[in-house]
Amino acid sequence: MSYTAPVKDMLFNIRHLAGIEQIAQLPGFEEAGFETAQAVLEECAKFNEGVVAPLNVEGDRNPSSWKDGVVTTTPGFKDAYKQYAEGGWQGLQHPGDFGGQGLPKTIGAVCGEMLNSANLSFALCPLLTDGAIEALLTAGSDDLKATYLEKLVSGQWTGTMNLTEPQAGSDLALVRTRAEPQPDGTYKIFGTKIFITYGEHDMAENIVHLVLARVVGAPEGVKGISLFVVPKFMVGQDGKPGARNDAHCVSIEHKLGIKASPTAVLQFGDHGGAVGYLVGQENRGLEYMFIMMNAARYAVGVQGIAVAERAYQKAVAYAKDRVQSRPVDGSMNTSAPIIHHPDVKRMLMTMRAYTEGCRAMASVAAAAYDAAHHHQDADVRKQNAAFYEFMVPLVKGYSTEMSLEVTSLGVQVHGGMGFIEETGAAQYYRDAKILTIYEGTTAIQANDLVGRKTARDGGQTAKAICAQIEKTETELAKRDSVAARAVGKRLTAARQALVDVIEFVAGQTKASPNAVFAGSVPYLMLAGNVMAGWQLARSLLVAEDLAAKGEDKAFMEAKIVTARFYADHILAKAPGLRDSIVEGAESVTALPLEAF
Amino acid sequence: MSYTAPVKDMLFNIRHLAGIEQIAQLPGFEEAGFETAQAVLEECAKFNEGVVAPLNVEGDRNPSSWKDGVVTTTPGFKDAYKQYAEGGWQGLQHPGDFGGQGLPKTIGAVCGEMLNSANLSFALCPLLTDGAIEALLTAGSDDLKATYLEKLVSGQWTGTMNLTEPQAGSDLALVRTRAEPQPDGTYKIFGTKIFITYGEHDMAENIVHLVLARVVGAPEGVKGISLFVVPKFMVGQDGKPGARNDAHCVSIEHKLGIKASPTAVLQFGDHGGAVGYLVGQENRGLEYMFIMMNAARYAVGVQGIAVAERAYQKAVAYAKDRVQSRPVDGSMNTSAPIIHHPDVKRMLMTMRAYTEGCRAMASVAAAAYDAAHHHQDADVRKQNAAFYEFMVPLVKGYSTEMSLEVTSLGVQVHGGMGFIEETGAAQYYRDAKILTIYEGTTAIQANDLVGRKTARDGGQTAKAICAQIEKTETELAKRDSVAARAVGKRLTAARQALVDVIEFVAGQTKASPNAVFAGSVPYLMLAGNVMAGWQLARSLLVAEDLAAKGEDKAFMEAKIVTARFYADHILAKAPGLRDSIVEGAESVTALPLEAF
Repeated sequence: MSYTAPVKDMLFNIRHLAGIEQIAQLPGFEEAGFETAQAVLEECAKFNEGVVAPLNVEGDRNPSSWKDGVVTTTPGFKDAYKQYAEGGWQGLQHPGDFGGQGLPKTIGAVCGEMLNSANLSFALCPLLTDGAIEALLTAGSDDLKATYLEKLVSGQWTGTMNLTEPQAGSDLALVRTRAEPQPDGTYKIFGTKIFITYGEHDMAENIVHLVLARVVGAPEGVKGISLFVVPKFMVGQDGKPGARNDAHCVSIEHKLGIKASPTAVLQFGDHGGAVGYLVGQENRGLEYMFIMMNAARYAVGVQGIAVAERAYQKAVAYAKDRVQSRPVDGSMNTSAPIIHHPDVKRMLMTMRAYTEGCRAMASVAAAAYDAAHHHQDADVRKQNAAFYEFMVPLVKGYSTEMSLEVTSLGVQVHGGMGFIEETGAAQYYRDAKILTIYEGTTAIQANDLVGRKTARDGGQTAKAICAQIEKTETELAKRDSVAARAVGKRLTAARQALVDVIEFVAGQTKASPNAVFAGSVPYLMLAGNVMAGWQLARSLLVAEDLAAKGEDKAFMEAKIVTARFYADHILAKAPGLRDSIVEGAESVTALPLEAF
Repeated sequence: MSYTAPVKDMLFNIRHLAGIEQIAQLPGFEEAGFETAQAVLEECAKFNEGVVAPLNVEGDRNPSSWKDGVVTTTPGFKDAYKQYAEGGWQGLQHPGDFGGQGLPKTIGAVCGEMLNSANLSFALCPLLTDGAIEALLTAGSDDLKATYLEKLVSGQWTGTMNLTEPQAGSDLALVRTRAEPQPDGTYKIFGTKIFITYGEHDMAENIVHLVLARVVGAPEGVKGISLFVVPKFMVGQDGKPGARNDAHCVSIEHKLGIKASPTAVLQFGDHGGAVGYLVGQENRGLEYMFIMMNAARYAVGVQGIAVAERAYQKAVAYAKDRVQSRPVDGSMNTSAPIIHHPDVKRMLMTMRAYTEGCRAMASVAAAAYDAAHHHQDADVRKQNAAFYEFMVPLVKGYSTEMSLEVTSLGVQVHGGMGFIEETGAAQYYRDAKILTIYEGTTAIQANDLVGRKTARDGGQTAKAICAQIEKTETELAKRDSVAARAVGKRLTAARQALVDVIEFVAGQTKASPNAVFAGSVPYLMLAGNVMAGWQLARSLLVAEDLAAKGEDKAFMEAKIVTARFYADHILAKAPGLRDSIVEGAESVTALPLEAF
């Protein structure tokens, strides 16, 4: 088996950190208790391990290809996607009204992890469809909902996000795609979009492009951007795909990784104009796009966790198999599997701790999302929304940045074999590199963290979270285990470092924006580090209790060791980051441009 | 121009940090003063910028290929190599007796950096030839020297290192290739070697394989390994290549990067036995191989610096060109080149500081090598040899590890374009990944650092270096500039962290090997970090003095900013690393194997 879903770890998080039983008490989630979670995860694991994971290597070797405007996906993808849709996986988190299963994100997100571990390239198609669904649910007219939602939720049709243009990447103010209002209320769309994931493919009957464009006469900048639905095939009265719309794929990119996922250049309107349907109101496109983006950002963070998990599993298998050199402690007098060597253990533990830490962080964030949307009490909703919003750039930014380190270590564990493409470890290293870039680079996430998530409320949300962390520290201090004390010590130092930085950011963003933004990514890395470490510290508390009761002792003890490793080797970076951020801004911006 | 050699920075190091004028006072180096260095570097820059660098992308797109035992290199390589040989570049550091120019490593090493920046894949061929020359110079018989050295030094023939076998990677004790003594004093060699860089190619008349093999009846393990010369073509009385030897390339690897460099599987003796000539004495092969390895390890460290420099230059060019978003400080009311954004500056400064720091470190190590080999005073030679030996694992390990971070940032600066292969930034990311693996993985370098370079002399050499660092701290403390004070503060904290770790390593390696080796790579990273930071601190002192005299002010001020950036953002990691190493070993090794 090339991938085994870490169902046990996922269920531990869902139960003990995310609190699935509390979520099951929220209106609409009555059926979504622990047993449901377990059943769904086990089914999901089976599907992804058996159907999707085996296509991962094939996708890298035999990527999607383009010919005369038609994209042919990797052999096997079409059939796997059919099974995905028929299994109802696309609708997992979407409302029952449109054929979904209405499960909480707390469950849905880990299913997303499995799909992405199995096959990052494959998983991108459903990921983008989710975004399109979210946008239509929030801002689409009843007509648009009626025409598109069921087909998207069932997976019969897929969705795309069309933001980027050659001159407009991170900077959407520069979008030039044009929308001309027509007498019948539709628009004609003209322009070129690039980097459109699954912008063209052969796995579904229709593709629903969500396109940012500027209505003729609209204000300049981001305030003049509107969002349109542009289907690949026009939808007839019968609800079926009919005539071809004027939206064509003129090429796909040759990429470092995720090669099976076609990255399209789409040309709108070269033959008279593509028919587009306005979503919501004119000039509010960016706002709606952010709905998609926020869902997608969290999901990309999960991709980081997913590829890290897969790289970890591969590295462990190799390290147990490859025999090379005697252990340094003289415990064996023959060459041993390399997992016996302390540095190989250090690499594997680093991979494991990062992955489990980020998974725990994402799980808790998902629970907050569910509470933010379903809790009866408005204050609780607000509080959870603030927590979730704070976590999104961390889940996206930190989990993807760590995936670069983890996949690099994955190659390293394989030694020379890791550099040979046939081995497969290098694919994860190549695939992961996009994750810190798309759906907003790490710097864009950090801008969000600094501006909207920290400075805007004077650091209140951030400090409230730190106060919660202190409670965990108090719990740790009550324990008399060596591990709890070690973790407590590092968590306290790291949390204090984070508080210093929050105060710096909250206090200085207006007065010294350059100084704050010089440390924005280090701040994101520090905050992500602490959040993941905090959740592992909570895991340790739970695991100690359960181990004492004799419940699944080996698992619980591994959880404790992993939490301690994270604290000793990853949380330990926090004070240094604090110093760099608070005292190091000047040297970031001092060099004049001509000196570069 | 896709690459511009940083001649000014190189000459600054050679003059002010490595002390070329002192080296020019050593016997044999009388001609090798600053002016020679300058002339050689300028010529070298011209050759590499003009001839070698333009082939880098071509090598990635059109790699070396294998057919029926014959390897055809990338179009253009053969001609460029001819120019390389004719220009006398192969003989730069080799003795005049064999046609070389006998220049110090202090000069030769930076020429190596240029060649590697220009084209990592191309540069590997000369790199391996250098290793073969070193081994023959040290241990070859007069006959072997007479037959092979001139041809290797002139670049007419090239050399290879044949260590690895499928079951013997880092662990050479497992080498199985067999050598059968023949009545005429030669040996017949039988076996398979893998990962042989330029093990077969079409750029030179002959290939001189240096092959580790076990003479029949030799002791097991590393004590029974001998070193042989196995030429591709037998050398006739006339000194010319004649009959084909029984050493054949059966395939080349499909790799993540350095694709133009053919990585061969070589089969020795499938047709009766390959003729091999013993180098030195039987069973001392490992010792001789280490001569090659040590030269190669330093050179691979330089490859890290080289690819980092190239990635930096590409990122700077993109950041100055790509227009996206307004500056956060409101200084412009239109979208600006992204180099105006603080986080882009942070990324570029990180790339620059790592690269310049490691370059300075390598330059100082090269000077120690020269003094260790040429100084009249045996004590001075010994002291320099100890310093150089200590630096080799750091130059190799730290410079290559940093190159992973730098080339990753290089892609990141390019955003989505970085992920598209046509852009070229991704090639550096792929190419660099081999550097932490071949010629001994980072873990192998760290074992060397812990065992032979630290524990063996009780940490004396390491602590003597720290005492030298303290002198730099004292000098910094005498300055009243903000930059000098900031750098001094970080350098002191980092050096103290390093001293703690040295004491831990020196004190615990015997008693608690697992605990020490659990932190061996972090120790290497800490030591490399401090050594590079120390050299940049020395640069700052020189640059402040020269800037005060008005000498090349812009350059000197950039040097000062870069040193400060390194201190604030990279040296600042040192205390955290100390904590992880000294207090974090238990969690590295605590997890039982079955829990992975």
